[in-house]
Amino acid sequence: MQARLGKVYLIGAGPGDPELLTLKAVRALAQVDVALVDDLVDRRVLEHAPDARVIAVGKRGGCKSTPQAFIERLMVRLATRGNIVARVKGGDPFVFGRGAEEAMAMARAGVPCEVIPGITAGTGVCAVLGVPLTHRGYTHGVTFVTGHTRSGAGPDWAALARAGTTLVIYMGMRRLPEIAGALMTAGMDASMPAAAVQHGTTQQQRHVIATLATLADSSRNAGLGSPALIVIGKVVGLADQVARIDAERRAVA
Amino acid sequence: MQARLGKVYLIGAGPGDPELLTLKAVRALAQVDVALVDDLVDRRVLEHAPDARVIAVGKRGGCKSTPQAFIERLMVRLATRGNIVARVKGGDPFVFGRGAEEAMAMARAGVPCEVIPGITAGTGVCAVLGVPLTHRGYTHGVTFVTGHTRSGAGPDWAALARAGTTLVIYMGMRRLPEIAGALMTAGMDASMPAAAVQHGTTQQQRHVIATLATLADSSRNAGLGSPALIVIGKVVGLADQVARIDAERRAVA
Repeated sequence: MQARLGKVYLIGAGPGDPELLTLKAVRALAQVDVALVDDLVDRRVLEHAPDARVIAVGKRGGCKSTPQAFIERLMVRLATRGNIVARVKGGDPFVFGRGAEEAMAMARAGVPCEVIPGITAGTGVCAVLGVPLTHRGYTHGVTFVTGHTRSGAGPDWAALARAGTTLVIYMGMRRLPEIAGALMTAGMDASMPAAAVQHGTTQQQRHVIATLATLADSSRNAGLGSPALIVIGKVVGLADQVARIDAERRAVA
Repeated sequence: MQARLGKVYLIGAGPGDPELLTLKAVRALAQVDVALVDDLVDRRVLEHAPDARVIAVGKRGGCKSTPQAFIERLMVRLATRGNIVARVKGGDPFVFGRGAEEAMAMARAGVPCEVIPGITAGTGVCAVLGVPLTHRGYTHGVTFVTGHTRSGAGPDWAALARAGTTLVIYMGMRRLPEIAGALMTAGMDASMPAAAVQHGTTQQQRHVIATLATLADSSRNAGLGSPALIVIGKVVGLADQVARIDAERRAVA
């Protein structure tokens, strides 16, 4: 007997706060048989998938994690056996993380795959922090880059400094001194406002607002670690002029 | 008699599909007395605000629109009279659009303002189109820039070309030939994959996938107009390798 072919929903769960899940994700989760969930996703998201068997396949920087190839094989196997599978990832599936590789693996295996976008940390965290990423008086745009690269060769920091967009750096905490140095060497002002935000949008949010020159020390002194988002640009300096209801969130500096 | 001070929710309604609204936005909308809504926001979003008086304050490129200062004064007036006000904007409030200016106007007026992030078109549209914006095999990140600037002086296209991030250009259709020319002059390959997407994530989605050199002509021949999103980078060439359930969406080329 041949099982009916299942389907994969590749779901972005947003930056942290479980209420930043979309209605579309909620509707998909209600149908799933199995949910493969990253460690950093708040478990309350799974309340929308009451019938799902939950498999934690998370990755955490520096810790033991499920190999990517294993995750992809598991997704294919579950779907070809007729399951509706949710692959639940933090942020947006196509902004860092391996959503692209997973979607392409499903395509190669002939497994139907629907991508449900989520709010990436770069926008979600800045909205809550009061950093207006693209304020037209200060910049033409925003760049999201990774500070952690496979080859070790990172982004072209000199070109990014020259481009003048607000910079949002994912997975950059460990290399922060080196990144800040590269930007200053490229001519970015040492006094450029800069922030680091850990657990952004959640009740555990902690952040530091400093300058390009001081952010690494300030973050270390405040005990901020990975995973955290780094934001660099004039718009960071506007945060205290932006109204925030949630000023009770804990600022460590 | 003094009215109780109200509150403003600055809500990102996402890229188009009304199901890409967040649970947090839905919860806020249920409480509001008045909703000030941009033209480009799908009216089905307002089904979540059954008690709200709706005021259209939209802007459309090139058409008559409500002046920004008027919108901000109206928000302040409504909130100081005790109303719970939703300012509903397309995409994310802090990624293009005037959310930053509105939040700062509320702060100056002493009006409590909570920003509820939304999915910006750059990520939402690419998720649905199958463009894996930051695939680690191809790029270190993604840049969102505006093609339409106040002063006429645009982004530094040469620096952006050199940075090598995927480029997502908002409000760039009118200047597309000029932008493509600037990128090629800066050394970007004329054969670089490029896409234009109109009404992304909605039932009306139409898109063209071409190259940097041909996108302007292809878009014009297909009758694509504003508002549309332009995406340029190697990852655009992966779209046909990414599984998509929604392949029935109408592609015009």
